[in-house]
Amino acid sequence: MFQDFKLVSDRPVAIQVKEYVNRLIIKGALQADQKLPSTREMSGLLKVSRNTVIAAYEGLKDDGFTYAIPGKGSYVAAMVGQSTADNGGADGSATWQIDWKARMNEYAVSAVELDMMKQGIRAKKGTISFTSIAPDEQLFDMGDVRRAFMDRMAIEGQVLLNYGYAKGYKPLVDYLMRYMENKGVDISGKDMLITSGFTEGFDIVLSALRPSARRGAAICENPTHHTAIKNLKLQGFEITGIPMERDGIDVERLEAVLQTNSFDLAYLTPSYHNPTGIVMSSAKRSAVMKLMMRYQIPVIEDGFNEELRYSGAHIAPLIATAGQGNGVIYIGSFSKVLFPGLRVGWVLGDRALIDTLESIKRARTIHTSTIDQSILYQYLLNGNFDKYVKKARTEYKRKYELTKACCEAHLPEAQLSGDGGLHLFLTFPTGVHTRQLLEACTEQGVIFTPGDKFFIQEGEGTNTLRLGFSRVTDENIERGIQIIGKQARSFLKA
Amino acid sequence: MFQDFKLVSDRPVAIQVKEYVNRLIIKGALQADQKLPSTREMSGLLKVSRNTVIAAYEGLKDDGFTYAIPGKGSYVAAMVGQSTADNGGADGSATWQIDWKARMNEYAVSAVELDMMKQGIRAKKGTISFTSIAPDEQLFDMGDVRRAFMDRMAIEGQVLLNYGYAKGYKPLVDYLMRYMENKGVDISGKDMLITSGFTEGFDIVLSALRPSARRGAAICENPTHHTAIKNLKLQGFEITGIPMERDGIDVERLEAVLQTNSFDLAYLTPSYHNPTGIVMSSAKRSAVMKLMMRYQIPVIEDGFNEELRYSGAHIAPLIATAGQGNGVIYIGSFSKVLFPGLRVGWVLGDRALIDTLESIKRARTIHTSTIDQSILYQYLLNGNFDKYVKKARTEYKRKYELTKACCEAHLPEAQLSGDGGLHLFLTFPTGVHTRQLLEACTEQGVIFTPGDKFFIQEGEGTNTLRLGFSRVTDENIERGIQIIGKQARSFLKA
Repeated sequence: MFQDFKLVSDRPVAIQVKEYVNRLIIKGALQADQKLPSTREMSGLLKVSRNTVIAAYEGLKDDGFTYAIPGKGSYVAAMVGQSTADNGGADGSATWQIDWKARMNEYAVSAVELDMMKQGIRAKKGTISFTSIAPDEQLFDMGDVRRAFMDRMAIEGQVLLNYGYAKGYKPLVDYLMRYMENKGVDISGKDMLITSGFTEGFDIVLSALRPSARRGAAICENPTHHTAIKNLKLQGFEITGIPMERDGIDVERLEAVLQTNSFDLAYLTPSYHNPTGIVMSSAKRSAVMKLMMRYQIPVIEDGFNEELRYSGAHIAPLIATAGQGNGVIYIGSFSKVLFPGLRVGWVLGDRALIDTLESIKRARTIHTSTIDQSILYQYLLNGNFDKYVKKARTEYKRKYELTKACCEAHLPEAQLSGDGGLHLFLTFPTGVHTRQLLEACTEQGVIFTPGDKFFIQEGEGTNTLRLGFSRVTDENIERGIQIIGKQARSFLKA
Repeated sequence: MFQDFKLVSDRPVAIQVKEYVNRLIIKGALQADQKLPSTREMSGLLKVSRNTVIAAYEGLKDDGFTYAIPGKGSYVAAMVGQSTADNGGADGSATWQIDWKARMNEYAVSAVELDMMKQGIRAKKGTISFTSIAPDEQLFDMGDVRRAFMDRMAIEGQVLLNYGYAKGYKPLVDYLMRYMENKGVDISGKDMLITSGFTEGFDIVLSALRPSARRGAAICENPTHHTAIKNLKLQGFEITGIPMERDGIDVERLEAVLQTNSFDLAYLTPSYHNPTGIVMSSAKRSAVMKLMMRYQIPVIEDGFNEELRYSGAHIAPLIATAGQGNGVIYIGSFSKVLFPGLRVGWVLGDRALIDTLESIKRARTIHTSTIDQSILYQYLLNGNFDKYVKKARTEYKRKYELTKACCEAHLPEAQLSGDGGLHLFLTFPTGVHTRQLLEACTEQGVIFTPGDKFFIQEGEGTNTLRLGFSRVTDENIERGIQIIGKQARSFLKA
């Protein structure tokens, strides 16, 4: 025994010795009431210092794996609740097996079926990938993030590591309320809930608005964000999609649908819409809000990519358009412009509504990581956000223009949309199946996101695709789009 | 205009100037196409440097709030989608109001009703509070946490801030799998999902196991963790509680109930049970597992406080007892022993089950904060956890013994339980209503948690209370329990 001990370099030696002996006990190689070698002997056997062994033995005793007899040495303790044959233990012939698959409910089964990450495109190394719309991490200003963390730790210390509040870290809530006010939002009568990103905020809102006794009915742009489609479906909503026009949702169609059907909510992304990148025009914003008010349909507004505006005047969110009205629930996040790894989003809406959502949030995750919230707060307070957004906008704008120019040059057959953000959306003449195009391009080392997954009904948008350019180099943007163009032409000829 | 500008000390000046002008635009004090004062003028008006104004004006232009005419100056831009009267805007006489309360479903209403934090005891300043079982933040080793963050940032850099994986941060998953193996768990055929604390893990598991077509049926210890009761109820489960004995759940009663009813799952806290603090005996662990296997009831094991063992041999979790069997889902967290502010928990169970739960996790929050996970990982790797737990155990053990001694001295009428952890549980003779006792004690400046909230049925446990001692000073433990004792005696006499 004790021959197979191997040291690694990145962990304290005493802990390695402790774990080593711990595992011998767990495996049964050392049995209850068996005496351990003396610290001196063990030090020789494992070729570590005697003090290290003393520390390791103390740790084992502290954890209850051994007991000490003064003057005699350390002995293995009989563990409470060790694996035994008659309760399905390791040595049992009849171990207890549950068929988990059979126990999963509709929600769980749907969550797997609708999980796009599990149907991801497998691409070989070196493939040019236009599938991501995550930010380019090369732009992250790590020094500023580190400083934000250290600054906040110095100011607040230990309390940052203890329980926080379900509603959110107070300084961040106050900051973001002002941030939204600066976008033109009238915050009187409104309040904010911090969530673990947009997704949690959206799911919490849906879980509160989903009717108890029947399936819910939701209306949204078509195409739209596929995570939103997924979560609406998972929460039992029937979805009615309204087609997109070049300046946003088709308002006539919207009105026609509202006249004949009733809905529990609308989900809208008025700025830099995903996947089309379209900014809804002023006239349409006004028309949409009038309709929603007339038919009393609560609006969930997705503030997605609002910060990634490359030209034109500032665009106020719908919730600003509503003034003191409380019909819009705005969900924001910096995940696309800033750091998605910091899981922080916010829900801004009617105060009484937020109070209810706070209880749901508490029941689900108690609260969002205080470290994430406080780093983000200090980063904003230090003025790093403005500096970063400036840099990010410059870089992404350049890539946006390059991608657009390449599409115009190499994919003239496709209709292009996208007014900002980190992607463009292409619509090919009917008959070009982008899933087939993807297959051909994958062979040539280029992948993108087929657009059909953003559409409500199966069979829609089969001639569309989304190009995310944020994490692709200039050279690869050019080369990739050239390849897509070449493949597309052969499809068009056929 | 420009008279009410006030500088604060903790933010960059240019950003303050930018926000100040931004708000004037938003409020309409500066209107579309109005010319801003020149940078030189503004510098004089606001008493800041001209360079600061130049930077602020640039920021306003970047955000689309202004436009520049070369050689002429900066002008206010007409914003897209500003608040207007006819869509419920600020000036509209008929602002759009939704009655959110009427739109909330059963789930949302229950979430509020079951939200204990909203029914918290309001205590005046200086009150001795035994209500918390959160760790004492004075024990937190901030230097080690800071170092863990800096170490991990230095190793991984930017990728920590981009999207991570729903399943969890790989190095942490690997570490915790080994950690669980060292507790005696056979990890073959098992896998792990990282969640935002125990609560999210529990809620995700329930959401997958809740029957689609009917109310679920759950069995658990009575009393038990009130968050677990809340989440079971919110997910539509009928709960059957099995009374606790001094060495754990009443096995005979459990068997009787299992013989006559069917259940979808059991929720158990075998070690340092909340609120009783009881450790289930070896014999009972074996008996419970045999019953669960016989009746094929999946067990959700709450690893709560497992690390806060003050005496006796190491206790293996039930999932270790099950060997290669897959019937136990273990949910762990370091929130009680380490830092609750880091929202990290883990679900360990059958590999196919975890694969499904991963999709649910992705649909709910995409993934748990990578910063939290990576700080925790590096902290563990650096060996800080062992050092910290040793210190925490020593301190909490001392407080545990002090609290116990004080209870024995001042509350001899109450039956005491608690084998470790951060609290003790007291059962008074029938007739002592701890809600009334709490009222009397609050008057005297002492509060605790009345035990009834841990019981399944209303009217149960009205003579019990939980004393959390982790955040109370020695002096206050003594003084507080003396006061409770005095009040209790007057109740006993009456």
